[in-house]
Amino acid sequence: MPLPSSVTVHAPATIANVGCGFDVLGLCLTAPYDTITLRRCEQPGLTITHLDDYHLPTDPTHNVAGAALLALLREVPETLGFEVEITKGIRPGSGIGSSAASAAGAVVAANALLGNRFDNKQLIDMAMYGEAVASGVRHADNIAPAICGGFTLVRAVQPVLDVVALPAPALWVAVVHPQFEVKTKEARAVLPTQVPLSLAVRQWANVGGLVAGFLTQDFELIGRALDDYIVEPARAALLPGLGDAKKRALAAGALGGGISGSGPSIFMLNKDEATAHAAAEAMGAVYQKMGIAFHLHVGPIATQGARVVNF
Amino acid sequence: MPLPSSVTVHAPATIANVGCGFDVLGLCLTAPYDTITLRRCEQPGLTITHLDDYHLPTDPTHNVAGAALLALLREVPETLGFEVEITKGIRPGSGIGSSAASAAGAVVAANALLGNRFDNKQLIDMAMYGEAVASGVRHADNIAPAICGGFTLVRAVQPVLDVVALPAPALWVAVVHPQFEVKTKEARAVLPTQVPLSLAVRQWANVGGLVAGFLTQDFELIGRALDDYIVEPARAALLPGLGDAKKRALAAGALGGGISGSGPSIFMLNKDEATAHAAAEAMGAVYQKMGIAFHLHVGPIATQGARVVNF
Repeated sequence: MPLPSSVTVHAPATIANVGCGFDVLGLCLTAPYDTITLRRCEQPGLTITHLDDYHLPTDPTHNVAGAALLALLREVPETLGFEVEITKGIRPGSGIGSSAASAAGAVVAANALLGNRFDNKQLIDMAMYGEAVASGVRHADNIAPAICGGFTLVRAVQPVLDVVALPAPALWVAVVHPQFEVKTKEARAVLPTQVPLSLAVRQWANVGGLVAGFLTQDFELIGRALDDYIVEPARAALLPGLGDAKKRALAAGALGGGISGSGPSIFMLNKDEATAHAAAEAMGAVYQKMGIAFHLHVGPIATQGARVVNF
Repeated sequence: MPLPSSVTVHAPATIANVGCGFDVLGLCLTAPYDTITLRRCEQPGLTITHLDDYHLPTDPTHNVAGAALLALLREVPETLGFEVEITKGIRPGSGIGSSAASAAGAVVAANALLGNRFDNKQLIDMAMYGEAVASGVRHADNIAPAICGGFTLVRAVQPVLDVVALPAPALWVAVVHPQFEVKTKEARAVLPTQVPLSLAVRQWANVGGLVAGFLTQDFELIGRALDDYIVEPARAALLPGLGDAKKRALAAGALGGGISGSGPSIFMLNKDEATAHAAAEAMGAVYQKMGIAFHLHVGPIATQGARVVNF
């Protein structure tokens, strides 16, 4: 069967950090997602078109999908290029892996057009060049779940990328995206450079507990272990409504949660769909009262990451 | 069936910290173990006899088994006491949970004489009073595996004890116990009070990776994730031969390892019995060459902790 000349991929939103797992843990959502169509061209180079209203750069070196595809093309011996059409379903700056989705979706689409010659680890490595365009750092905590699906642990980025992809627990995620901006640079600037060893120990006890809870589907343990003692307290001041939204979601039955990535979105994990809707509504009500516009997303943790939806 | 009036328990050695998991992770060994016999008396109080040559205190408030049993007796409404005979199979000060074994074994024995009315969490809580006698701190990282067996994560001690007992990976442990003393107080004093956030993140990535590796039996991941970036570098100067012993054990095929507890013992995890013996011999050879006497222990991770061996 000849390889297709065109492919469309859905590339989903992701939750980075996941409570206590700053810079390390990630979860894949089913929605929202970016839709990315690639057409293979015999002439080299990339042509990028955005079919949305976010006015993102289309110069390949300044576009997250473009930078990821350029990294992929460096590993391809044959002469070829791509026409790329991107429809952002994930709002840029929402904190649910918008840039990672476009970068991950682009390399997954290109890989399909090339007979799936690259494995997930290679695709993650390429897509991280997109994150470098978006934030200046080649980080993988959104890219890994956007490509692998489920629940991922980025054990190391340097000297060798080490991503552990694990089966997703059967949980439902509630996300509120309040419509204000948290600059990634500012979110980084408020972090302490040193932390008390005693607090670091409590944090890694929670990371171990959260991984154990996910793998054994122990929802009560997940609830206890999600708490972030280091990063969330430092960032809380940048996120009006955070404490109140979490409190209301917990009262609605959520297991626990926290800032998604560096915000402004807040995620809560829930044992079932009904509780996830209740938690989302409870968080929305907080922002409604504050007069801050918001979007809600509710869905299960996705077992699959970016995927081809048609040739 | 009436309750027995006398019981004997084997209480095994344990590995606390387990590489990256300082103050949090623990593993149970099958040997060496302490042998503890309890006889129920109708008159209150404890009489402790040591059938070994370690000259440990026999005053109940200064004996680890005694302090643990006094905590247990505070929870028992009826008037009773115990005659306690302890044969230490685990050398005090070896760093493989000698005090934890005696404390854990004592409360497990007493519980058997009382119809097993206490659960593991209650027994851990009581046995921690023994650790307070030994080191001044009510810590659970050896007590938890000594009671639960397998692999344990102490997620929290305060405000509420939260111990996660998990199935043991099918690994073999090699331990070398070089015959010099590391004072727990000194081992605590060399720890940094603050750690760089970047290093703490690498450490909790490893804790997450190690827990995932244990639960999915991914031995290569376990090997990569064992490394301790924070505590072992600080303590290495107290442990002559550590770097060399680890290097030789790795060359012999061990997956990884580190200081057991606060030392002086060093543990290495191995995929099978033959490799564990090779790793133990390789570590022994290092101390042989240094003119330091040593003991070797090789065995699987125990699925069971302290256990009744006869009534």
